[in-house]
Parts: sequence; C-alpha cells; structure tokens
Amino acid sequence: NEHTHSFKTSDNLMLRYILGEDDDMPTPTLFTEMDTLQHDGDEMEWKESARWVKFEEKVEEGGERWSKPHVSTLTLHSLFELRTCIQTGSVLLDLEGYSLPQIVDDIVDRQVADGLIGPELREKVSFVLLRKHRHQHKKPIHLSLADMGKSNNSPTNPAQSRSMNDISDKPSTDQMKNKFMKKIPRDAEASNVLIGEVDFLDKPFVAFVRLAQATTLGGLTEVPVPTRFLFVLLGPHGKGKSYNEIGRAIATLMVDDLFSDVAYKARDRDDLIAGIDEFLDEVIVLPPGEWDPKIRIEPPKKVPSADMRYKLYLGQVNGTGTAGGPGGGEDEEMPIPHELGEELQFTGRFCGGLWLDIKRKVPWILSDFSQGFHIQSISAVLFIYLGCITNAITFGGLLGDATDNYQGVMESFLGTALAGTVFCLLGGQPLIILSSTGPILIFEKLLYESNTIDYMELRLWIGLHSCLQCLILVATDASYIIKYITRFTEEGFSSLISFIFISDAIKKMYYPINRVFKPDYVTTYRCECIAPDQGEPLLSLLFFCCLDWSQLSKKECVKYGGALLGNACKYVPDLALISFILFFGTYSMTVSLKKFKTSRYFPTKLRKLISDFSIFMSIMTFVGLDMLVGLDTPKLIVPTEFQPTRPDRGWVVMPFGKNPWWVYVASAVPALLVTILIFMDQQISAVIVNRKENKLKKGCGYHLDLFWVGILMAVCSFLGLPWYVAATVISIAHIDSLKMESESSAPGEQPQFLGVREQRLTGILVFVLTGVSIFLAPVLQYIPMPVLYGVFLYMGVASLAGIQFWERIKLYLMPAKHQPDFSFLRHVPLRRVHLFTLVQIICLAVLWTLKSTVAAIIFPVMVIALCVCLRWRGSVVCNTSDNLKSILNESFFIISKLERFQQTECSITHVGRESPISSPIYCLHRQVIFA
Amino acid sequence: NEHTHSFKTSDNLMLRYILGEDDDMPTPTLFTEMDTLQHDGDEMEWKESARWVKFEEKVEEGGERWSKPHVSTLTLHSLFELRTCIQTGSVLLDLEGYSLPQIVDDIVDRQVADGLIGPELREKVSFVLLRKHRHQHKKPIHLSLADMGKSNNSPTNPAQSRSMNDISDKPSTDQMKNKFMKKIPRDAEASNVLIGEVDFLDKPFVAFVRLAQATTLGGLTEVPVPTRFLFVLLGPHGKGKSYNEIGRAIATLMVDDLFSDVAYKARDRDDLIAGIDEFLDEVIVLPPGEWDPKIRIEPPKKVPSADMRYKLYLGQVNGTGTAGGPGGGEDEEMPIPHELGEELQFTGRFCGGLWLDIKRKVPWILSDFSQGFHIQSISAVLFIYLGCITNAITFGGLLGDATDNYQGVMESFLGTALAGTVFCLLGGQPLIILSSTGPILIFEKLLYESNTIDYMELRLWIGLHSCLQCLILVATDASYIIKYITRFTEEGFSSLISFIFISDAIKKMYYPINRVFKPDYVTTYRCECIAPDQGEPLLSLLFFCCLDWSQLSKKECVKYGGALLGNACKYVPDLALISFILFFGTYSMTVSLKKFKTSRYFPTKLRKLISDFSIFMSIMTFVGLDMLVGLDTPKLIVPTEFQPTRPDRGWVVMPFGKNPWWVYVASAVPALLVTILIFMDQQISAVIVNRKENKLKKGCGYHLDLFWVGILMAVCSFLGLPWYVAATVISIAHIDSLKMESESSAPGEQPQFLGVREQRLTGILVFVLTGVSIFLAPVLQYIPMPVLYGVFLYMGVASLAGIQFWERIKLYLMPAKHQPDFSFLRHVPLRRVHLFTLVQIICLAVLWTLKSTVAAIIFPVMVIALCVCLRWRGSVVCNTSDNLKSILNESFFIISKLERFQQTECSITHVGRESPISSPIYCLHRQVIFA
Repeated sequence: NEHTHSFKTSDNLMLRYILGEDDDMPTPTLFTEMDTLQHDGDEMEWKESARWVKFEEKVEEGGERWSKPHVSTLTLHSLFELRTCIQTGSVLLDLEGYSLPQIVDDIVDRQVADGLIGPELREKVSFVLLRKHRHQHKKPIHLSLADMGKSNNSPTNPAQSRSMNDISDKPSTDQMKNKFMKKIPRDAEASNVLIGEVDFLDKPFVAFVRLAQATTLGGLTEVPVPTRFLFVLLGPHGKGKSYNEIGRAIATLMVDDLFSDVAYKARDRDDLIAGIDEFLDEVIVLPPGEWDPKIRIEPPKKVPSADMRYKLYLGQVNGTGTAGGPGGGEDEEMPIPHELGEELQFTGRFCGGLWLDIKRKVPWILSDFSQGFHIQSISAVLFIYLGCITNAITFGGLLGDATDNYQGVMESFLGTALAGTVFCLLGGQPLIILSSTGPILIFEKLLYESNTIDYMELRLWIGLHSCLQCLILVATDASYIIKYITRFTEEGFSSLISFIFISDAIKKMYYPINRVFKPDYVTTYRCECIAPDQGEPLLSLLFFCCLDWSQLSKKECVKYGGALLGNACKYVPDLALISFILFFGTYSMTVSLKKFKTSRYFPTKLRKLISDFSIFMSIMTFVGLDMLVGLDTPKLIVPTEFQPTRPDRGWVVMPFGKNPWWVYVASAVPALLVTILIFMDQQISAVIVNRKENKLKKGCGYHLDLFWVGILMAVCSFLGLPWYVAATVISIAHIDSLKMESESSAPGEQPQFLGVREQRLTGILVFVLTGVSIFLAPVLQYIPMPVLYGVFLYMGVASLAGIQFWERIKLYLMPAKHQPDFSFLRHVPLRRVHLFTLVQIICLAVLWTLKSTVAAIIFPVMVIALCVCLRWRGSVVCNTSDNLKSILNESFFIISKLERFQQTECSITHVGRESPISSPIYCLHRQVIFA
Repeated sequence: NEHTHSFKTSDNLMLRYILGEDDDMPTPTLFTEMDTLQHDGDEMEWKESARWVKFEEKVEEGGERWSKPHVSTLTLHSLFELRTCIQTGSVLLDLEGYSLPQIVDDIVDRQVADGLIGPELREKVSFVLLRKHRHQHKKPIHLSLADMGKSNNSPTNPAQSRSMNDISDKPSTDQMKNKFMKKIPRDAEASNVLIGEVDFLDKPFVAFVRLAQATTLGGLTEVPVPTRFLFVLLGPHGKGKSYNEIGRAIATLMVDDLFSDVAYKARDRDDLIAGIDEFLDEVIVLPPGEWDPKIRIEPPKKVPSADMRYKLYLGQVNGTGTAGGPGGGEDEEMPIPHELGEELQFTGRFCGGLWLDIKRKVPWILSDFSQGFHIQSISAVLFIYLGCITNAITFGGLLGDATDNYQGVMESFLGTALAGTVFCLLGGQPLIILSSTGPILIFEKLLYESNTIDYMELRLWIGLHSCLQCLILVATDASYIIKYITRFTEEGFSSLISFIFISDAIKKMYYPINRVFKPDYVTTYRCECIAPDQGEPLLSLLFFCCLDWSQLSKKECVKYGGALLGNACKYVPDLALISFILFFGTYSMTVSLKKFKTSRYFPTKLRKLISDFSIFMSIMTFVGLDMLVGLDTPKLIVPTEFQPTRPDRGWVVMPFGKNPWWVYVASAVPALLVTILIFMDQQISAVIVNRKENKLKKGCGYHLDLFWVGILMAVCSFLGLPWYVAATVISIAHIDSLKMESESSAPGEQPQFLGVREQRLTGILVFVLTGVSIFLAPVLQYIPMPVLYGVFLYMGVASLAGIQFWERIKLYLMPAKHQPDFSFLRHVPLRRVHLFTLVQIICLAVLWTLKSTVAAIIFPVMVIALCVCLRWRGSVVCNTSDNLKSILNESFFIISKLERFQQTECSITHVGRESPISSPIYCLHRQVIFA
C-alpha cells in the first residue's frame, strides 16, 4: 500500500490550514518564464524557452517563434522528481531581495551552509546564475524580412533581444515595448525558472526562492513584471532533458491556482510538498497507448474553476476526493430550470407590473445612451436599418395592394419610423424592433374586403378599442401568463417566422425566363406596337397622322391605346438570372463574411470588423455588381414626395361621420381579436429576445412594452398608419449584431460571451434613419430588390441557426455514432428526442398549411389542432406513463385541466432548455394562431 | 525521496525478463467489457457500462446509447488504488476454467483460503457473481421508434438485451447478431471487469483471474469472444464511484499493448505490479487547472506504437526513460531525405533501366487487372473520362484552329484513345493519363505557320526523329537526371499547370451581356435580315422574287448574302448568366459533395459513395437544370462521322514525295526541341505521380514510359494524329480518385491512407470510352460546355490543394499566432519560409508571363531568368553564408559548378519535403520552358 494515498495522509489538514489562513487578500496572478542555459563555446547565456500565463507557450527553436498556447502535458516522472528536488534542495521563503546578485549570493550562501555544495563552487555557481538573459520577441514581419537582407550569421539574432545589464533594476526598453504585456493581468507577479547543465557540478543544485517583496530584477523577465518566485535547477551534463521536464513541471505548478496560493502562503518546505501532493491528487492521467505525448493539446473552451478543489480542503465538501472522470458522467451539469425572473410575477396590484417595469428601467436611462457609443453600433444600425426598410417596403407594398393604397409604402415608412422611435425611446426592452407582421396584414385585408363600411374610420375605432384593451391587460398584469411559454412554443414560433422569411425571400425571386428563344431565330423575335383600330375618326385625326407607331416605347404604346404584339414582349432578357445571382450572391457572401470571424486569416480585430459589417459589405458589393452589369433590375422604390399614397385621404382620420353609431361600439369585437394577436405576437417575441442565453442585464419590461404598443396603435389609427408589433427575426438580428465578447486575456483562453450592448441608441437611430429614408431616395434607388431579398434570406437562415429544434432535425440525418455530443443526447434516449422533434415538425407543418389560409386568424379551428398536439406532446415529454394516460383520457377537456397540468411538471428539462411544461394551451394557441 | 522512482528500481529487470521471454508468439488483442452491478429493488443484475477495443466507449445512462470512443482519462488515484487491489486481492493465474460457476467457485475458494473473506460469505458472493448480464445494443432507429408505441415502463428495455442463461457455454443469438463483432480483430480474446457494491461486505473483494484457455462463458460478454481475463471488484456500499474508477483503470490497462503482454506472460502478482508501474511511468499527466476532466478527448489521428516502450525494456535503447513531452520538442520526426529509389539509378548498361523497368512490372501483370474490379473504379473511370474528353475537345478545337483542321476534334479523339490505351496497357506507370498539352500545341502552331513546306509530311519526319531520340534516351538511361528535381520545381510545375487549368476554365466563360437593354424599349429592339444590294440581276431573279427576307433565320440570311441589322443581333439573352450558373454551380456542387465525406450526415459508406461520385452527380444535376431551363447553351460537340476533319487528307500520311530530301534530315533539329519538351513534360509529371505521399507499391517505370511515348509519337505521326504526353492535373485526379483507406478497425481509430489502387483497367477503360465517344454523340450532346468547364475548374483547384506551396502562400495572410502547426514552421523561421515562398511566387509570375509568348519554347532567354532565380534561391536555402557568397560570386558560371552544388547539400529539407537542392539547372529550365 506504499503508493496509495502516501501523499494524502496528513496533507489534507496541512493544506486546509494554509489555504484557510486569510482568504480576504487574493494572491496575485503569476506569470512564469522558463530560461535554459545555453552554451556557445565558452560563452553561456540564459535563453527563454517557454512561458506560462495560464497555458504553456514554448519557443520553437528552429522556427524562432512562440508555439500556440497549449495544455502542459507533463510526465508523472518529472512531477516526482520535482517533489524530490523541493525535498532535498534549498527553500528560501520570504527572502529580502532587491537585486539579482544579492539574491544569488543568498542562495549560494544557504547551499553552502546546508552543505549541499562545497564553498569552492560558490564563485562558479554565482557566475552562471548571473549570465545574461535573452528573450524571445515577436517582431513585425516587414522588419524580419528587412533583417534577412543583413548577414545571416551575425551573432545577434534579430528576433531576440538580450538584456545586457542584469544588474539594472529598471525595466529595459525591450521589456517595456513588449506587447505581450497586455496579455498579463495588471497585478501579476513573475516566477522565474532557471534550468541549466554545467560541468562543475556532480549533483543537482536546487533552490526555491520566494521574495518578501516582488522585485523587478533587471532583464530577468521578458516583461516588466516584478519577480516573486525563483526556481533554480543546475546539474551535471547529460540529464538536460530530464531537468527541462522538471522545469516545466514547476512552471506548470506555479500557474496552477491552488498551488500558487500554497506557494504564496507556505510556511516551510513541507507546505510546498503538501501543495505538490494536492496537485498530484487532482491530476488527470492519459494512458500512454492511447495518446501521443507529442500532440499539443489545445486549451479547452472552459476550464473548471479551482473552487471545488478549494472547498475540498476548506471543509465545505466532504466528498471522496476523486474527480469524476468522463466515465463517471454522473455529475455533469444538469440543466437549470428555466426561470423568467421577477419581471413576470403577478403583483395583484393595479398597474403593479407596469410600475415595477418603470422602476426597473429608470436607473439605466443614462447608460441606455452612453453604452450606444461603440463602433459595433454603426454596423448594427446599418444592418437593422436595411432590414427595416426592406420590411417596410415589402409590407407597405402588400398593404397597398390589400387596401387600395389607403395604406401604402409612404404610410409604412412613416409608421415604422414613428412607432419604432417611440418604442425604442420609451419601451421596456429597447432591443425589440417593431415592424408590420403577417397576421396584422391578413386582418387588414379581411377588414377592407367587408367594404360596406368606411374602412379608415372603422379601423380607427378598432385601433382605439384595441388600445384600451391593451391598457387593461397592462393594468391587470396579464402578461404574467407569458411565463408559461415553453421551449416547444418558442422554437415553433421562431422556426415558423424564419421559414416565412426564407420562403418570402425565395418567392420574390421569380422572374420569367424566355425558354423558347433560339439564337438562330433572333430575326423573328420582336415586340411591335400595333396601332389600334381606327374606329374613332377623331383619334385617327389626332394620332395617326403624326405618330410612327413602330417608334413608340412600350409605355407610350400602351398610353396611346396601341397593342403590343410579338414573342418578345413578355420577357426581359437576363433579368431572372442576374436577379438570382444578386440574391444568392448577397446571401452567400454575407454567410461567408460572417464565418470569416473564425478563420485563421488576418488579425482578430480586422476579422471582427469584416464579420460585423458583412451585410453592409455584401450589399455594397452586389449593388456595385448590379451597376457594373447595368441591367434593368428591379430597384428599391422609395416615395419621393411627402404625401399619403392615396390622394383622396388626408394625414388625419376623423373618428365620426362616415359610419352608423353602432359601428363605434361593435368594433370592440374585432378589436378583441387584434388585441389577442398583438398581445401574443409582442410577448412571445419579447420572451425570445429576453432569453437567458442573451445574458441581458438590464431586465425586461413586458408590461411597459405592451403599454407603448397599445398607445402606438391608437396614434397610428388616428394617422391612418399601419399597426406595429415586435418582429422576431429582426429583433434577434438586432441582438446578434450587438453581442459582446471578452477580449481574451491569457493566451489560449477562449473569449467569453459577455452579453449584449443594451441601449436605446441603435434602435432610435435605425428608425430615425427609416424616417429620413423618404428623402434618401436618390441614394437608395440604386439598391436592387434581389439584394435586399438576399439579406432577408440571410436573416431567416441566421435566426434558424440558433434554434435547438433545428439541431434536432439535423440529428435525423446522422447515424448515432456521428452525432455531436449534445448534453441532452447523454440524458434522453435518441428515439424520444426524435419523437419530440417529429411532433414539432408535424405541428409546424400544420401551422404552415393554415397560415396561408384565412383560418389563421380564427380561433375555433385551432382548438382541435391544439388537442391533437397536446396529446402527442404529453406522450413525448412525460416520463411516467401515469401522466400520459391521464392526458390521453381527458383529451378534449384541456382548459379545465390547466391547473393540474401546471403542477405535474412532466418537464422537458432533459431535452433542453428547461421550463416545466405547463399550460401548453397558451403556447399552442399561440403557435396555431400567429403563424 | 520516497516517491521518486519508487516503482522503478527493480521492475525494469523484471519486465525485461517477462517481455523478453519468447517474442515469437504475439499475444492476442484484448476486448474489455466493464459491467457494473445494478440493484433494482431486491433484484440484481450486471449491466454493461463501458467497453474498450482500443479506446473507451461508455454507455450513456440516460441516452441509452454508446458514447463516442474517447481516450480514457483516469485519475492517478484510481491507478494507485488498483495497484493496491492487485497487491492485496487474489491473483489466479492460468486457472483451468470451463464455465462461469466453476470459475466463480474457484475464486471464492481462494479468497476463503487466503482468509480474505469468511466462509459464511461464500454463498452470497457466488450468488452475486452469477447474476444475469445485460448488454447495451444498438438498435436501428425504426425499430426503436416502433418500440416507443409500446408501454414505456415495461421492465425490459428494448435497446438492451439480457443474457438469460449465463451457464450456457454457447454464444447466444444476441451475441451472434451483434454487429460490433466486426470492429474486433479476429483473434481477439475478452477481458471482463465486474464492479459492484453489495451490502454484505465490509471490505473490498478483489480477484484477478487469467484462464489457462480463453473460454466462452455464456452471456458474460456482449460479443461471442472467449474470455481470458476476469477482474472482480466487489465492495461495501458508498464507494461506488471510486470502484468504478478502479474498474476503468484496469480496463484501460488491459487494452494497453505493453500491459496486456505483461498480463499474458505474468508469472505472479509481482509481475503484474511491475506492469502497472511501467504503465505509471509512461503515463501522460494533465494539470487539473488547465484541463476539465469532463471533456472527452477525441482519439488522436495516430497513436505512438508501443515499440519504443518495448525497446526500453528489452535493452535496445539506453535512454533516460523520460518520454519527451511536447515541451521537449527535440525528438520530433525530422523529415526523411527524399529518395526516388532504385528506379532512377544510372545502370550504365545499354537499355539497363528499361530492362529493370520491365522486370519490375512483369510480376504485377495479373494484379494490374484483378485489382481494377472495384466500385471505386467506376467513379474514377467516369471522372477521368469526362476530364479526357473535355481535354480532347478543347485541344482538338484549338489544334483545328491552329492547323486549318489538318488535326481537329476527330483526330484529337482518336489519338487520345489510341495513345492512352496503348500507354495504360503497356506503360510503366499506368496511372499516368496521356493528353495533349500546351507546349506541343504552341509547337504545332509555329510549325504550321512556316508554310512553305508540306505540313503533314514535315510533321511525320519530326515525329520519327523525335521517336528515335526518345529511344536513344531510353537506351542510355538518361531519365536518371530526373531525380534531381526538387520540391521547388515540382511545386512550381504543378501550380503553374493548375493555374492554367483554372484560368482556361474561367476564360471560356465569357459571353457578352446586352447591358443597354431597357425593357421599355423592347419595341425598338430587333435583328432584321436586310436583302443585299440588287447589283447582280441574276441573283435578283433567283432570290428576290420568292424570298421573304424578313422571314429568314439568321443562318439562312447569311447564307443567301443578306445582312443582319439591329441591336439584338449580337446578343443571346440569358446565355451568359445561365452559363455562369451552370459553371459555378457544377464547381461548387462538386466541392461541397467532395467535402461531404467528412460531414456528420448519413452512414460512412453512403457518404463515401457520394464523395466518389461527386463530379458525376454534379454534372447530372446541372445537365438536368440546363435541360429544364431549356436555353440554348453551348453544348459538347462530338464528331458523328468517322472521317478526318479535313476532307482532303487521308488516315495515313505518306513519308515521301511532297518535300525536298534535305527536309527529311533537317527535321532532326526541331525534333530535338520536341524531344526535350516531351522528355521533361513526361518525366516531371511522372515524378509528381510517383510521389512518396501516394504510397505506390508497384514501383514506377520512367524508362518504359518514355519508350512508349516515343513509339506512340511515331505511330501518331504516321496517322496524322496529335502527339501525346503525360498530363499532370488529370493524372493527379486519377490517383486521387483511386485512393484507398483502411476500414477503421477499433472504434475511434482513424482510417489510414493505404495507397492507391494501382491497376491498368481504369486507364484502359477511360480511353476505350473516349474512342467509343465518337459514337456516343446523341447522349453527350446534352452536356453543356459550361458544366465541363466547371469540372475543369474543380480539377485545377483540387490539384492546388495538395501543394505545400499553396499552404505557404496562405501563411502570408495569417498572423503568426493563428498559423497552423506545420512541422516546417517549428523548424524554420517564418521570415525564411515567407522569403522562400516569395521567390516561388516571383518565378511563377515570370513563367506565367512567358508562357503565353512564343518564348516558351525557346531555350536561351531562360538562362538569364535561371541565374536570377538560382541566386535568389541560394540565399534562401543555404544556411551558411559561405555557400551563399560563393554562389553570389560565381553568378553566371552555373553549369560548371553543378557538381559542387550537388555536394554542398544546402538543403530545403527543413522547409518541407526533403531532397537536397542539387542541379537546379534542370529544375528551373524545366519550369521556365514548360509552362
């Protein structure tokens, strides 16, 4: 039993004592540099061979460059040898040191005093330890190339700097200029490891030094960081490789959170040994036959925090001390239950939620603007602006069609600008972008078609009623029911919206191609203007004398009553294909540029810039291409004059006079439908935006949001503008374009997603720009529509990418052994995951079919679909068949069971993002209706 | 010093003795299965929890699936605990076992005899050890889904099978049906690890059993593999996790090459302990703060062989015993010097090389055909066939232009078929594909333009002389000089050829687009046929009476002498863009489908099929699209009648009669130029094909190749067909499409590139098909040319991808820290790599400029370029400035220094693929001339 636990017996207590001492003052981060002794003839110097901030970087001897940061793979051997070194060598703790020569003197003195070396070696050891230090520096490539011109075997290597005066205690210019400094935390201290072979020693000379005060020791370290620790290992020739490994071992230990803490607090040699033993105890071992030690292991995305290890020693945890290997698997993070936080608590007071929302938002007012000043905001504004005007034009056009231009592109622009600006300025979640949406469009269409009643006036009254109803919902905290929305609903909703975006984008791309054209018969291919019958003598007199009909253009021909005859009239050559190229090109260029962020080319900052401005750059490129080709592609049409689209309406709609009195009252009924539409559309989008994954810090304001949406409805109704509600895809795009990542600190550490730039500035700017766009027509008219549809397609696809549902669909096509290691696949049998996905697909398919029909805004039809869905859903997600059966039996009595369902918590936590499956009625209603 | 080497002192000798015993009989591979004891109320059963062939696969409890194979990460702890277990538990070696109950009895007897358990526990332990075993089986997904319909809480889980009778010694059907069997080597034996917690023990019950004969123990193992080893660990409740880790440790040890050997040969407990200690000694350690033990490490591409570890113990190596960690870096594989093998030795005998080539090739005659029967060959034939006919058409068309159709598409097809078939049937390297190439084309053009002499006869004589010269080169083993070709030259040559492919493909894609077309003026847009001047009365009489000129098609109009007038005549609508879409679509679809091989979707075999047939599928798709759109895209034109392109020449060229006698002799001079062209073009392509990376096993035949190329020249000259020589890009594509990979054996092991299907069948088929294509016109005429150019582009880009030069160009755009970890970057400073690349780029640029001029086939101009290049090159690759200076000084006296240069070996081995830089004159000449 000599090996087992031999280093565990008493250490536990010892460590507990050391680490528990005073936890108030955290120990500084350590930067470790390892220098090895180089012999060049009789000359000797210390040359930097590796460094550690968190991970190891090695100097590639031949390449004269730093390796990539990698995990230090050590040998067990070297760790044991290090342990011996500490046990037998000199340990000088809290040495008063002010310069390297003095420190070296002290070390040698101690060694001589301890009888470890003879006094005759004193001089020689000191001499070796005071040799110059040469550091590995990165040099810009143009300088290096310039250096190539110089003679090659000159003694000073251009890529390395030498500290000429080690005795100086001021940092040299080389040290100061070193850009690596910014990768090291501010409070950092250095630990220097010196490893060398010499010919005058017959056994190793080992010293571990901790200085009482961190001191800058001249050119010892490559960066101007004061040295706190010094580890020296000199030994006889022939075991250099072994010494090197020992050096790497101590260097790795020094950057270990726990050991560095021990090293700072150690009272004697035994404390250090205890620290090494703790490290050995936690070490991860790879079998020699399964791994090649030459492979450099890339730093992991996330390293475990040292807290667990601390707790072990500070007594908070009474575990067995074995780290759960990947085989253990039992202690993997279980998904934490979904909680929407206090924002959606039911207060029970009048306007309680609204009041809390306001209270929550007020403290952020200043930062809501100040945080907007960032380069990223510019790209976000451009991106979202383009999305918004595309949307405004599309919906404007469709609305104009549906309502005989009572509301057209002009109204659409003005309304978007007005509603958006107000909402972003005063709303609860300024990251949400308001826009026209599909359901509202269908509603307006139906409304206009019932044309016995004056449309604009009726619409005004519906808007007013709906506004009132929204305010009632706000006052009663009704938004709290949103918290019952599950991943199932959320995903279904966003997928559907994405699909609509994608299919709309593709549908718009249809142009006819002249497929029967044969180049040889180009001579018979024409489109001629034929003069009309000369029935009316007056017309003949007016036109036929002076008009050469064959010289008229297509428009003129139609204008003067001529007929177009010929096989060429229908077609515009090249139009379909250039449109396709513009559309697809914009899309793929945006995708490629977005991906460029993770490529190897160019410095990180430039890549980030390219990625941020990818949409803008793609649009510019393809607008350029379009101009170059010069074909008559359909361009963005922006109204140029500030007046309502339909000349016979004014800017303000009068509430009375055109309809009988009962209409004013009865309009409350359709208003109810609109209210429900708006409520659900608005709040589900808000839930998606406020997702935990987005790490929003300023809280949300569901009640406040709804309040402003209601008010804006009334205002828009008065002005005869369309109604606005949160647009999921554009809002997600808005958030994506404002995401922040940490500048990675230690080399090799992954940048962490920090959150979103939560501010009101981008939103406001987007909508002000949208408003101003009415006057930007001369510039905007160069943008071909296919390019904008390409952006649409990108938005749709990009918002699909973040959805787990989509990941699960892909699983269908993968054999089990190739599937990615999703957490839910470890915990839920594949067939259940598949079934769950299948149900989602079926629901979506049904919704997709329904969405194009009028049924989309009618309640009752949906209830049946709901029941079917619910039954299916129960069978997937409930783990006990008890729940399943009860659901099967009750079938059509869903609403009465709502309460009970909320309690059974047969959750889909396992499948993914938490949240008990409760009150699916809301979610599914939502899905069915708002497709 | 208690830890260091505590397990190293005497073990070394002991292991040396065990392992050295008799090395003749290799020990079988071990398959390890770990079962853990599950309590289900009072019921107990053994449930499979992990298995090892080489890497670990774990049963995901919740997911009811196998995890991906991963490297077993152990804790040091568990290894030490295992050591203790072996030290204190029962070790039964060479137990005679025929059934599980008997073996269990023996184990328990021994434990009781050793006093490790009381006799009263005998029954209980036996009972536990004889419980049923349940294994994890993979089930097809449709069955799993069907199972979902059944009740969910039924006791038998559908995805798991239970061995009901452990006492049976025949494998159960479940075992037999298990498809996992094919992942286990044939001779494998099983080792079973049983881990369980029971309530009747107060200290662990440990047994390690080796059976005298491997025996099938009923349902103990999931596959019908006989069991050799058995490790049992039962212990009191509460330490299950720790036991589990010990089980994983022994299982990992059992699949370790060295330890399994020790286990087979161990004479007693101490041998096993020595084996564990050896393992511990070689183990790789990851620091706890830099790695998360929960991350499953993917198996490496290649694991180090256990040979080094064996050697250590068998005394062949007297190393220090420390494995060189990645920090060590000193012992990384240095590139092995490039050697072309004996094929290019100068024999000094008449036809010595040719004779050796034939001797080398004869033994393979049978396998040259038998190995061709493989599904992969079909896709290769299709791919290369398409490449060949595209090439034949392109060069046929160009030659026809250059020689007034003395040689046209028909001759091109016939010649390709004839030369290719003969070469593939009888040549030395049948993987080489013959084709027309650029330099020959330029030569023919120049020849034809000097038109005072009869072209076909002159050409015949040049061909005959050239054939004779080639035969002389063969007889004198002149091909040996090819071995001086370096990476620099090779890369330059292949890059240039690739660039030509790419630029040709792109150049062909130009069609005019009508950019001034405005849809509104479609009425004025036409192309009319205008009758010619009525100057000749006869013509007027003939035509003008009966012809309606406006009804004529374009062709008729021109035929009858009319003029085409109008703005529409020049353009074909949509043609340019559909061509672009077909071209780019074919290219990108091929690229995507090729990449599909490494995607996660679909089973491996299907993916491989898709990848192999990617070009065929892309062509089919875009031919389909083209037919669907129905536009008049330019199609592949294949001759339909078997006759020379020019009606006034016959199939055979007569040698005498048309030119004066001196021409027959003088033609030897231009023949020399042709010979050099052919020699260099042929042999450099052969060097590229015979690269070591391709792992060709049947050797090459440079002399034999040249012999047939020479003979074919004469034959083609007689028949008036073009001359043929090896085509680099298509040959590389041929090899790529015939690459073989090992079916990976152990889960997690990477498939290895095994070599190329070296055979003559694909080549012969390709050329026979090319010949037959003359009659395939009705099918082939549907293929649009843009699709074929897309294939061209793909070939060019694909052959670039394998070139290191290209990788080095990409380095320019990457910041040092993002650069991939190429071996040469570790050994050569970046600025040198960049400079080397820059020189290559400049050389290529110069060659590119020259290639389009007539200069391409004239020697002298090149010499200056050569000198410049050589000087530059010297400065890059010579490490000592001595060499550099001597080169600088000698400057223009290169040829005389050739010998010396060969000796100085200032090599580019570091930069990449080895080979001393010697005789650069050949290489650079080559590059300059044959662009």
